[in-house]
Amino acid sequence: MVANETATPNLQSLTVELGSHSYPIHIGSNWLDHFASQLVAVASDVSHVLIIHDGAIGATIAERVRQSLLKYSWRVDSFSVPPGEESKSATQLVEIWSWMLQCRADRKSVVVAVGGGVTGDLAGFAAATYQRGIRIAQVPTTLLSQVDSSVGGKTGINLPAAKNMIGAFWQPSLVAIDTTTLATLPQREYLSGLAEIVKYGVIENASFFMWLEQQARHLIDRQADALSYAIRHSCQSKASVVGADERETSGRRAILNYGHTFAHAIEATAGYGTWLHGEAVSIGMQMAAYLANQRGMLASECQARQTALLESLGLPIVWPAADTEKMLAAMRSDKKNEHGKIRLILPTQIGHVEMVADATPEEIRQAIVSCR
Amino acid sequence: MVANETATPNLQSLTVELGSHSYPIHIGSNWLDHFASQLVAVASDVSHVLIIHDGAIGATIAERVRQSLLKYSWRVDSFSVPPGEESKSATQLVEIWSWMLQCRADRKSVVVAVGGGVTGDLAGFAAATYQRGIRIAQVPTTLLSQVDSSVGGKTGINLPAAKNMIGAFWQPSLVAIDTTTLATLPQREYLSGLAEIVKYGVIENASFFMWLEQQARHLIDRQADALSYAIRHSCQSKASVVGADERETSGRRAILNYGHTFAHAIEATAGYGTWLHGEAVSIGMQMAAYLANQRGMLASECQARQTALLESLGLPIVWPAADTEKMLAAMRSDKKNEHGKIRLILPTQIGHVEMVADATPEEIRQAIVSCR
Repeated sequence: MVANETATPNLQSLTVELGSHSYPIHIGSNWLDHFASQLVAVASDVSHVLIIHDGAIGATIAERVRQSLLKYSWRVDSFSVPPGEESKSATQLVEIWSWMLQCRADRKSVVVAVGGGVTGDLAGFAAATYQRGIRIAQVPTTLLSQVDSSVGGKTGINLPAAKNMIGAFWQPSLVAIDTTTLATLPQREYLSGLAEIVKYGVIENASFFMWLEQQARHLIDRQADALSYAIRHSCQSKASVVGADERETSGRRAILNYGHTFAHAIEATAGYGTWLHGEAVSIGMQMAAYLANQRGMLASECQARQTALLESLGLPIVWPAADTEKMLAAMRSDKKNEHGKIRLILPTQIGHVEMVADATPEEIRQAIVSCR
Repeated sequence: MVANETATPNLQSLTVELGSHSYPIHIGSNWLDHFASQLVAVASDVSHVLIIHDGAIGATIAERVRQSLLKYSWRVDSFSVPPGEESKSATQLVEIWSWMLQCRADRKSVVVAVGGGVTGDLAGFAAATYQRGIRIAQVPTTLLSQVDSSVGGKTGINLPAAKNMIGAFWQPSLVAIDTTTLATLPQREYLSGLAEIVKYGVIENASFFMWLEQQARHLIDRQADALSYAIRHSCQSKASVVGADERETSGRRAILNYGHTFAHAIEATAGYGTWLHGEAVSIGMQMAAYLANQRGMLASECQARQTALLESLGLPIVWPAADTEKMLAAMRSDKKNEHGKIRLILPTQIGHVEMVADATPEEIRQAIVSCR
């Protein structure tokens, strides 16, 4: 990771180090009018751009991106994805493939995904599979996608019976984060993104966690400097983990899954949409920390600090309606499992986690019950 | 590439050298009863196998593979793909994805594709995308798939308007070739496979081309030793090209496309099914050699040797009904093109080809007309 200033004013940049397919993350405020100059820096031979954007923000952010692109003599086509998780479907994917062909996209075309995680994952998978893979730039417009899904190359769609079951590892050529896109984000959705930011503190950065404890009020209020710092540090965390384990093979990348095995079960059993993803992660981290404490891995004081930080950020820490047996069944079918064993990432202190594969069903039940 | 004997009797093995994802190709006669022991050699942690096989050979070859697998204590599930190019569709892919989920496939499961190119491409793409990629072993059962599609990691499906438009590079863990599976192959389909074998001689191996000239009669008669030698040398050719350019980025892999830009246009304009793929490649190589000769790149004597070899192998070398303008239009939309330029692989002698990107429409027209 190298932090440096680029030509566009007030832009800070990181690099995800992945050898021949390393890529930059640019973070700044109100800079998307200059997006095209950053795109051409990583894709000098582009002549055709396919914008795939969330339908809800089509008229605003995607249009700014399009106007920026039109200053070059590129062909620009646009596709609007209906908002909502339902769009991460095989049906929507086939529609996008057909549209790309109609636009005569070829291997020199570049996809630009503008939106949240649904749009980024769907457009990323379309780019990964069109003509066996064309380039993509990610322009995440929600806090959650800015600090998590836009970095790292995970792309995919859902099957009716299981989320994120189909996909590919496909790294973007560029991640372009403009914090002003968050201005219109509903507060509940904004706060949900903070849960993933807390996660980075717990799994690998105690001083960042401490900074979050001090800045909680500013973050809730979307204070620009605090927000920008939090996003940058989160991207740095994710970039370093992804750089060490691009395809989730060495085990290092698994630490990003802290709270997520519980969270996926919360989302699946509550019905998708009841909890926002970050909210489920917040409760899931609480369950994981409880389990770690019960095993004697984590001091009660550390567990309490996590609880206090999540609460001060306005995040939920309990789910009274949790169905223990249903959640346990959902966790057994998590795709991170191998040979049917539930694998959990559990903290040992603020800033460090370990993988545990021998948690008993009874331990897991108690962790769920602790958050009811 | 390293040739060596393995434990299974009469098995000859090559390695496709691709660093951390190198893999063996095993070639032998009547050895699929021992398939499982070769699978376990490359996937020692397998506990679940998903056989995806061509419906037409379900009762025979796939069953032998299944019986071999059942000797281990693995879970084995089977899926039958309806025969024919129509199965390389998004609809069929989604069905396979759902079936894999129903079978509770996880990242330690292994797909085994048993069939020709359609099955291998479809199953390969399903494996490449299920949970962002699980392992696959290819068991090709047609001559064409044994010498071409099973090696090299190209997987994919068709869109209604264009073949092989969607897919991924996803290398198999193992390619298992049993020449006895060819016994029941219809003669026309068998001969079609010989066209790809001739291709390897033209593009990079003059002595292999000469051997083919001498052995043409034995190959038509499916004489076991000649056939095994031809398959092995073809796989060696393909393995060395793929090893030098896994993802078609350096340009080296493009030489495998000799005859194919014309062939794809022949297949597209004749209606898929009029010509078998290898037949179209045979005519396509004739068009390419004509164009090369007209440009002064290729001696008439070399062109004549190719014509004579293809004829002696019972392959078509003309297509009287070729529609020049329709073919030209189809070639303009080939996905190998960049910025709309038609790229052709043309021979300069037997055993060497070059890429040409400046052939004029008139030159291409004349090449097509030369084979009418």
